Amino acid sequence: MKDEIGIGIVGFGTVGSGAATILFRNAELIARRVGSSLRVKRIVDRDVTSDRGLALPEGVLGTDLQALMQDASIDIVVELVGGCEVAKRIMLDAIDAGKHVVTANKALLATHGEEVFAAAHRAGVDVGFEASVGGGIPIIQSLTGGLAANRCVSLVGILNGTSNYILTRMKCEGQDFQEALAHAQAAGYAEADPAFDIEGVDAAHKLAIMVSLAYGTPVTMQDIYTEGIQRLTALDIRYASELGMTVKLLGVAKHHGESIEARVHPTMIDSTAPLARVDGVYNAIHVVGDAVGDVMLYGQGAGSLPTGSAVVSDVMDIARNVRQGVRGRVPPTSFHMDCRTPVRIRPMEAVTARYYLRCMVPDQPGVLSRIAGILGDHAIGIASVLQQARREGQTVPVVIMTHRASERAVQTALRTINGLASLVSEPVTLIRVEDQEP
Amino acid sequence: MKDEIGIGIVGFGTVGSGAATILFRNAELIARRVGSSLRVKRIVDRDVTSDRGLALPEGVLGTDLQALMQDASIDIVVELVGGCEVAKRIMLDAIDAGKHVVTANKALLATHGEEVFAAAHRAGVDVGFEASVGGGIPIIQSLTGGLAANRCVSLVGILNGTSNYILTRMKCEGQDFQEALAHAQAAGYAEADPAFDIEGVDAAHKLAIMVSLAYGTPVTMQDIYTEGIQRLTALDIRYASELGMTVKLLGVAKHHGESIEARVHPTMIDSTAPLARVDGVYNAIHVVGDAVGDVMLYGQGAGSLPTGSAVVSDVMDIARNVRQGVRGRVPPTSFHMDCRTPVRIRPMEAVTARYYLRCMVPDQPGVLSRIAGILGDHAIGIASVLQQARREGQTVPVVIMTHRASERAVQTALRTINGLASLVSEPVTLIRVEDQEP
Repeated sequence: MKDEIGIGIVGFGTVGSGAATILFRNAELIARRVGSSLRVKRIVDRDVTSDRGLALPEGVLGTDLQALMQDASIDIVVELVGGCEVAKRIMLDAIDAGKHVVTANKALLATHGEEVFAAAHRAGVDVGFEASVGGGIPIIQSLTGGLAANRCVSLVGILNGTSNYILTRMKCEGQDFQEALAHAQAAGYAEADPAFDIEGVDAAHKLAIMVSLAYGTPVTMQDIYTEGIQRLTALDIRYASELGMTVKLLGVAKHHGESIEARVHPTMIDSTAPLARVDGVYNAIHVVGDAVGDVMLYGQGAGSLPTGSAVVSDVMDIARNVRQGVRGRVPPTSFHMDCRTPVRIRPMEAVTARYYLRCMVPDQPGVLSRIAGILGDHAIGIASVLQQARREGQTVPVVIMTHRASERAVQTALRTINGLASLVSEPVTLIRVEDQEP
Repeated sequence: MKDEIGIGIVGFGTVGSGAATILFRNAELIARRVGSSLRVKRIVDRDVTSDRGLALPEGVLGTDLQALMQDASIDIVVELVGGCEVAKRIMLDAIDAGKHVVTANKALLATHGEEVFAAAHRAGVDVGFEASVGGGIPIIQSLTGGLAANRCVSLVGILNGTSNYILTRMKCEGQDFQEALAHAQAAGYAEADPAFDIEGVDAAHKLAIMVSLAYGTPVTMQDIYTEGIQRLTALDIRYASELGMTVKLLGVAKHHGESIEARVHPTMIDSTAPLARVDGVYNAIHVVGDAVGDVMLYGQGAGSLPTGSAVVSDVMDIARNVRQGVRGRVPPTSFHMDCRTPVRIRPMEAVTARYYLRCMVPDQPGVLSRIAGILGDHAIGIASVLQQARREGQTVPVVIMTHRASERAVQTALRTINGLASLVSEPVTLIRVEDQEP
């Protein structure tokens, strides 16, 4: 048994300082749980002067990455620099040096995960990335452990706190997107450049990671249809409420025998569904397994200490292996490397859903029946229509809820409708609807 | 590496057949995840004729427990017979035979857990009991793994599906307790003798298990103040709704430095709190950690396949250890045996809460002020009073919400009030109120 396990941390920003704080503050508790002491040997960052509210022992914080890599007393390297290329280099260098690695970097894993996992497999080291999805929520360990006996039927999640905060404000305060975004930025919940969050890229990274684990197949960001929240309007959010629905940016994955679907986009769900009630910066992941039925995990999807909690849980998990001299107990791909079989990702056009369509139509007789006719031509059934009081000479919104239809049919029909200026004064707004059991 | 890991199942009832179904149906998936095949070698039950909807290979099902214990090809014994004494004997015999053990038996663990864990420690075998709390919800693995970096600030859970189903019907259908219980029995959600469920005993067993893991201290059922839902009335549920509150049977544990409180009783919580929205037979556990903040896990708290899912996840976890020849990687007590320090359980009288008090008072002037005076004498502040329209010559309900007060003060004041027939026509109804952040 190894009495002391050495930790090196690269990147001393928000998550790095959170992880370090927990490792120092809860050191005794952690040692009592792991059975060995976890000692932070080195923390490397370019910035060694800013105050992170944490008093480190002399000599721990420095700028020398090579010294950390060459320090034989360091068993586990925690990569928390963010970005892709530099982070990948650090991960691969650490793996080459025979060290186990832990990261919170979803962009890296959703892009270069296979390369990192293959290198770790060859070197016989462990990789932890609980913090890459859902902040402190133990979703990765649940997919690889607690729920591992299940075939994953579906996986639906609120995976980006920034978007969820904005959508919550749009719903609860009636704010428009730009106003809610500005508010999120002022409150520190959105970055100056919020593109990754609001365009769904961050959520797609996280969905790619979860889908890979759940289905034992390599999935990258490119496999996932991705649409953000930046074009949502206060009007559509209001209509959703009238229909008893809530709009969330969801990552959705479903299993269909020989193929899976995986997509990220604004989605209407029944306001009584568990995910509809996840507000503000919280994240939640709803998993349906063939045995367990539905399970939901809910918590803070970001932040220094919540994400640090997930990082340290990985460090502890790997430390338990180091202590007993075992490696590769649970492969980072959840399925053993030679037991994975690529599963086809269903193209977005082949996905089916119900659809919310808002058409801005001139106030003239016959327009609705022509739109309904075009939808009918593409075998799209109409479940309900909501038409506001007519306003003489103005365009009026007509909201159509369809029955289940294929994305291909809907997009084709909308191209026709959008091409007819006599029917709509602007392109039809489309929001997909998911039926989630409450 | 061990290519095949042998499983023996004792008890082929609801959970046993669920676990067996998953092990057979998902055998290939499980093998791809574990890296070795899990083979069900023997299932032992007194009843070998009933149809469990599962075709077993010839020779697997039998009545000979000793043969199972002596079968050297069996690495892991799954105990699913229920009850305490027989189950304990099976667990200890399996441990003596050098086999790892998995159980769903909360009554056993909350009563004899220490004895079982000590025996397993001496024998160097693993113990899994994910299925003992929250059915398929991966709460045990989260407490020992994904959330293990945290000091547990509090742990609040809906831990008994039968009670939650009854309370949901009382709230949503306005039914009285007996009516809702009869409905639960007819629907198969309550047993003919529902005492363990409705009296809070089952929830207390589960809370004892979670508290032991969260705080690294031995806790048994006897340490936990337990009160069931059997005396709740439709009237109080209705008043709760009027106050924007929902009544749930909660297991509550909180950390107070040198002591912890642990209790099970009907509790009013704000109707917007996440736990208030957990309806029907679902369970949920809300954990607050010093790093992660609040996390909630939600899912089906019982049933053949959901509970079987948790059993098989334990079997897989232990199989991963067996495969690599490692034992005791995560101790069943979460903290290593020699690293546990008994923590004092705060006596119920020292617990503080807010209180809902319903007094049935004669319609006479001055009664309310006398009751308020008695509460004031015991330093119990009144936050609000709800009094129904007076009915000449009848007793009328007066609902008092107190500020935070100690259980001792409230019980003493109520003894005085209840002793005065001029004040109340029946003993005051008391429901504790928990403030949970939404």
